[in-house]
Amino acid sequence: MTIETFENPNQNRNYEITHVNPEFTSVCPKTGLPDFGTVTIKYIPDAICLELKSLKYYFLEFRSKGIFYEAVTNVILDELVEACNPKEMEIVTEWKARGGMTSTIKANYKRS
Amino acid sequence: MTIETFENPNQNRNYEITHVNPEFTSVCPKTGLPDFGTVTIKYIPDAICLELKSLKYYFLEFRSKGIFYEAVTNVILDELVEACNPKEMEIVTEWKARGGMTSTIKANYKRS
Amino acid sequence: MTIETFENPNQNRNYEITHVNPEFTSVCPKTGLPDFGTVTIKYIPDAICLELKSLKYYFLEFRSKGIFYEAVTNVILDELVEACNPKEMEIVTEWKARGGMTSTIKANYKRS
Amino acid sequence: MTIETFENPNQNRNYEITHVNPEFTSVCPKTGLPDFGTVTIKYIPDAICLELKSLKYYFLEFRSKGIFYEAVTNVILDELVEACNPKEMEIVTEWKARGGMTSTIKANYKRS
Amino acid sequence: MTIETFENPNQNRNYEITHVNPEFTSVCPKTGLPDFGTVTIKYIPDAICLELKSLKYYFLEFRSKGIFYEAVTNVILDELVEACNPKEMEIVTEWKARGGMTSTIKANYKRS
Amino acid sequence: MTIETFENPNQNRNYEITHVNPEFTSVCPKTGLPDFGTVTIKYIPDAICLELKSLKYYFLEFRSKGIFYEAVTNVILDELVEACNPKEMEIVTEWKARGGMTSTIKANYKRS
Amino acid sequence: MTIETFENPNQNRNYEITHVNPEFTSVCPKTGLPDFGTVTIKYIPDAICLELKSLKYYFLEFRSKGIFYEAVTNVILDELVEACNPKEMEIVTEWKARGGMTSTIKANYKRS
Amino acid sequence: MTIETFENPNQNRNYEITHVNPEFTSVCPKTGLPDFGTVTIKYIPDAICLELKSLKYYFLEFRSKGIFYEAVTNVILDELVEACNPKEMEIVTEWKARGGMTSTIKANYKRS
Amino acid sequence: MTIETFENPNQNRNYEITHVNPEFTSVCPKTGLPDFGTVTIKYIPDAICLELKSLKYYFLEFRSKGIFYEAVTNVILDELVEACNPKEMEIVTEWKARGGMTSTIKANYKRS
Amino acid sequence: MTIETFENPNQNRNYEITHVNPEFTSVCPKTGLPDFGTVTIKYIPDAICLELKSLKYYFLEFRSKGIFYEAVTNVILDELVEACNPKEMEIVTEWKARGGMTSTIKANYKRS
Repeated sequence: MTIETFENPNQNRNYEITHVNPEFTSVCPKTGLPDFGTVTIKYIPDAICLELKSLKYYFLEFRSKGIFYEAVTNVILDELVEACNPKEMEIVTEWKARGGMTSTIKANYKRS
Repeated sequence: MTIETFENPNQNRNYEITHVNPEFTSVCPKTGLPDFGTVTIKYIPDAICLELKSLKYYFLEFRSKGIFYEAVTNVILDELVEACNPKEMEIVTEWKARGGMTSTIKANYKRS
Repeated sequence: MTIETFENPNQNRNYEITHVNPEFTSVCPKTGLPDFGTVTIKYIPDAICLELKSLKYYFLEFRSKGIFYEAVTNVILDELVEACNPKEMEIVTEWKARGGMTSTIKANYKRS
Repeated sequence: MTIETFENPNQNRNYEITHVNPEFTSVCPKTGLPDFGTVTIKYIPDAICLELKSLKYYFLEFRSKGIFYEAVTNVILDELVEACNPKEMEIVTEWKARGGMTSTIKANYKRS
Repeated sequence: MTIETFENPNQNRNYEITHVNPEFTSVCPKTGLPDFGTVTIKYIPDAICLELKSLKYYFLEFRSKGIFYEAVTNVILDELVEACNPKEMEIVTEWKARGGMTSTIKANYKRS
Repeated sequence: MTIETFENPNQNRNYEITHVNPEFTSVCPKTGLPDFGTVTIKYIPDAICLELKSLKYYFLEFRSKGIFYEAVTNVILDELVEACNPKEMEIVTEWKARGGMTSTIKANYKRS
Repeated sequence: MTIETFENPNQNRNYEITHVNPEFTSVCPKTGLPDFGTVTIKYIPDAICLELKSLKYYFLEFRSKGIFYEAVTNVILDELVEACNPKEMEIVTEWKARGGMTSTIKANYKRS
Repeated sequence: MTIETFENPNQNRNYEITHVNPEFTSVCPKTGLPDFGTVTIKYIPDAICLELKSLKYYFLEFRSKGIFYEAVTNVILDELVEACNPKEMEIVTEWKARGGMTSTIKANYKRS
Repeated sequence: MTIETFENPNQNRNYEITHVNPEFTSVCPKTGLPDFGTVTIKYIPDAICLELKSLKYYFLEFRSKGIFYEAVTNVILDELVEACNPKEMEIVTEWKARGGMTSTIKANYKRS
Repeated sequence: MTIETFENPNQNRNYEITHVNPEFTSVCPKTGLPDFGTVTIKYIPDAICLELKSLKYYFLEFRSKGIFYEAVTNVILDELVEACNPKEMEIVTEWKARGGMTSTIKANYKRS
């Protein structure tokens, strides 16, 4: 699993990049049934930025993975922070209704 | 009434979990007629998380219970705080129109 | 189960009456879990009209009844046709998502 | 109760005029409580058109009148047909929720 | 004019209650024509809460009252503060277009 | 008042052209106050098409003209039919609320 | 691949059943990348109806299948017609944007 | 140009008044073509309030005036501050697209 | 300019394929400025279908082409009919506002 | 590339100007395919303002330029700050979906 990056074209200022993937799907480890959600990545880059196409392929790896909402959100945050070493990053996952209920998980990273 | 929980998969950071149940129904203690509403739970977990399916069954117990808007909101907050001992929790209940008026109740808990 | 009616105030012309109940709930006979839906009644009255309040109480009787989507739609059509003997009637039931899927059932009656 | 009219500026072709009043209110004859609704008038004029301001004052007369949904719709149709003798007219009344249910009544006139 | 109240079911925490009445109507003192608006009450109760049905009857008293937007908003705030002695209260009135313009008035009370 | 036209680029088939002007304004001949509306032109061209820019200037001529809703709709239809001699044309004017009521006028032409 | 069915609870009248699955996903046979879409089934049952849960499992079988939009729509229609032998059936598939373009395919069956 | 005012009915508390005029039109000084926009006035009154009808007539004076977006926003703020001497006031003008671009100007006054 | 096609996977029934491109841009031949629009293709295939990716490249050829709304709509219809010889086809182009006005052009082909 | 400016009509107060261009298009340097987005400029002017028409022509220069989302956002911010020397400026670019994902970039300038 390699997420490609490219050099941040403007390292003089802090600015905010947001990518929204409304076509995320993983598998519920309890029922084996697919979950569907929207993943939003918001970050302030430092020296490098996440490359959009490789990000897409990174998300595809969850298509057959059994993993809970809370875990997948934290895993994506950990792995993307490691991939591009940003100044700040936030991951929000919003899940389609299961049993009539929708869920949203939000996790943040701030470089100390 | 037992609400199941599971171990928080990431206890190193504070992150926010939201569950929205748009299919909540209880009974008005005054008229005996059903009330319909949406219940939103937002919390920052500590050691454990609320399990989604048992949460759904917990809400079903209100289906025949006579209870006012203001009371049901505080009862849910008290019981869910007790169930998972979160760092913070907020309950919002939004009710369908009665007599032409809609109502919303919002209550918060913050561990001191 | 008695649905009250009142005399049609204008029997000289055909006109159309629609009532929409977005707070309908019954029970799935398979899982025992509640179903939530919107019931729409559209009809052309003949000599009598359906009284709105008694219609509301009529719908409440389904709150604890185990019955499939397809059956409940046809049962409501049969019983309301019997209650007010309209020239035409249509029942549409629209159901909240179960297993990620929403359903709609539509049934018509036309006096021959 | 006089509804003013003015001469149809183009009597060579059939064309359609629609007025929508979203601020209609009358009184429920059963409970004495106010009803709120939207009244839509659609018609094809013949020799005369309905004057907009007098139409507004006409609707104000229902503000304290106790009258059912079905009756008010037919009364408005009868009185406006008499006022301007159109080729065709349709009245639609859409009512705010009462007891959780919304209602719509539609009545038509076509000159024979 | 008596607004009924009931005992606050949870006096240990501050929580927020909102009631929205989209069916408010009063009379313009200048033109004698009706005004239509939505009234929103948001408050933090102390020992007592506003009873929903009596609140509805309270609003009905404005139906024939000639009063300006700015005045009605402040009057409602004064009277409801007196009725339930809350910790905080906010009244927002939003008015349908007159002369093509819509208006909104917002007033707050905070117990000192 | 000259409306420019250009040669229909495809005279072998009947096809439909629609232009929507949401920035139309004229003057109410009764009150002298401006009216605001959206004008929609839909037509099937024959040998020539309406040029968009000259159409815009044509609409500007109504900015200070006192004219009723019903009349302006028929006048526009008459003048545009004369300008481009279409196979069919429909004019719809939708007007912002006056006295709380919105209005729509629709007129059609079909070459005989 | 077996789609379960149950006996049509009302075989005396023709009525319409619609199921909408907004969580359909298959694989593009050209690129190997997932496609996401909404599948709508509308049919008039004869002796039997499609069981909702087995329908859901039926759709899951496409999750790893490489198949074009046009083909998958016709395959679903063929297989569901075979499964429940309806009087009429329509399948509509609506696909999320690829290369900036969205697509919709609609196929119908009518028993002759 | 006189903007009428009336005495603030409640001078004991600071409260907020908002008027929105979606039917504002002035003239572009460069092209001579009309501009269309929505003007929003938000203010905290001191001793007097802006009278709604005279406000409407005030806006009509811009109908034939050639003036830029930035200037008209500041002019309205200056003139309305002078007219009612408020504690605070904000003017927002939102303009329909020109050359495919929409514009919004926001200016504030706070009594020092 | 070659538009690729593929064999229709189901030639036994008539079914409808729709592709929507909301990112179409061409150049106004009068002003040299870009036009932006949405192009919708709806057709019933015969032996072959339009390949989605080559369709996208086909649309890109208009990016620097000076051509009027009416002409581009008919040109696309002619060229796509030639490319896939469908039983029926409809092209709708919807254009962003120019001079405050939006336009829509609709053209149809039916094999005789 | 010259962006025209004009003198700020009110230099006594800080106020905010926003221009939104929903018709921005540039070229992806990797694939050579066009990107489509909305560019929002928000700034507090000092002595001069950006002229709207020249701003439009400035954006047209990106139509054939190969440049990444992150770079184009920072380039626009740098060039517009240079053009009008504002007190503060923010550029937000929102991009249509590529590979199913949408992106937003936000960059700020504050004069020190």
